[in-house]
Amino acid sequence: MARRSFPLPRVYGLLEPGPVVLLTTAHRGRSNVMAMSWHTMVEFEPPLVACVVSSRDYSFAALKATRQCVINIPTADLAQTVVDCGNVSGRLVDKFAAFGLTPLPASQVGAPLIDECYANLECRVVDTRLVNRYDLFVLEVVKAWIDPQRKEPRTLHHRGRGAFMVAGRTIKLPSRMK
Amino acid sequence: MARRSFPLPRVYGLLEPGPVVLLTTAHRGRSNVMAMSWHTMVEFEPPLVACVVSSRDYSFAALKATRQCVINIPTADLAQTVVDCGNVSGRLVDKFAAFGLTPLPASQVGAPLIDECYANLECRVVDTRLVNRYDLFVLEVVKAWIDPQRKEPRTLHHRGRGAFMVAGRTIKLPSRMK
Repeated sequence: MARRSFPLPRVYGLLEPGPVVLLTTAHRGRSNVMAMSWHTMVEFEPPLVACVVSSRDYSFAALKATRQCVINIPTADLAQTVVDCGNVSGRLVDKFAAFGLTPLPASQVGAPLIDECYANLECRVVDTRLVNRYDLFVLEVVKAWIDPQRKEPRTLHHRGRGAFMVAGRTIKLPSRMK
Repeated sequence: MARRSFPLPRVYGLLEPGPVVLLTTAHRGRSNVMAMSWHTMVEFEPPLVACVVSSRDYSFAALKATRQCVINIPTADLAQTVVDCGNVSGRLVDKFAAFGLTPLPASQVGAPLIDECYANLECRVVDTRLVNRYDLFVLEVVKAWIDPQRKEPRTLHHRGRGAFMVAGRTIKLPSRMK
């Protein structure tokens, strides 16, 4: 897809609605993808994100060692791929090859962007104080990309056990909130 | 509304999709409500939630002092109320009275449930290590309530600057994910 640089101060608007994301890492010559729903914004600028990557996940060691990852935001057309990524471990399978995902080089980190996702956030780990207790990492988004064609992306929102809410219409109300 | 106790191990399914919530606190005889989108699950059981309550918010002092709150989940019919709650500080206004919200006593905490919300999660603060740096609290959900009538709630998901995505349809795929 045609990707455009996206302003870092606006990144919160991509993650605040709570989409399922695909987290990519690269470690020892191997890339991996995992589905992740446990993330939240922590700061607007620079954009900071807290997320939980379980120590049971194959991505955990890569994230801890490299301190780099990419948060890729998929849309509903990738629902089956999201579930496929969540159903199998990167220990066993090269998920890019198995599920037809296209890795692209990132600009600031070693982990790849996923071409099929409408937005990609290159991240560095900036705080690991809650990793031991909760597997919770604090990331800083250092570079963001978006497909400018997709104005109202049909993101996926995990309700558990394979049920996903697909993003509906957007309403706009006068608000002083950021 | 007719409220029913909701099993704690299933609470993650309410918050994982990323809805805007209304956080209630009570401190020194005064209840308050704030709109919040920066939250994530951290553990399934007991259900732990990380959330950011800014030190600029009136609720911050109450949460820090009482270590208790309720996460109330509104639906699209309350969109204007959510914005109203976000546009004004509890320092100046009794938001329950001003916006027609009905406080109900909680069972485990001093903060009130909001009757108009379809789910209510009574919480205690269990970790404040990241409060100084990020205003990030870790909460344990100690009691959960739900309106059993609402199977597919039209939750609100904040995209920034008063734009809210309204929850769309739910799709179901065979998944081994929790």
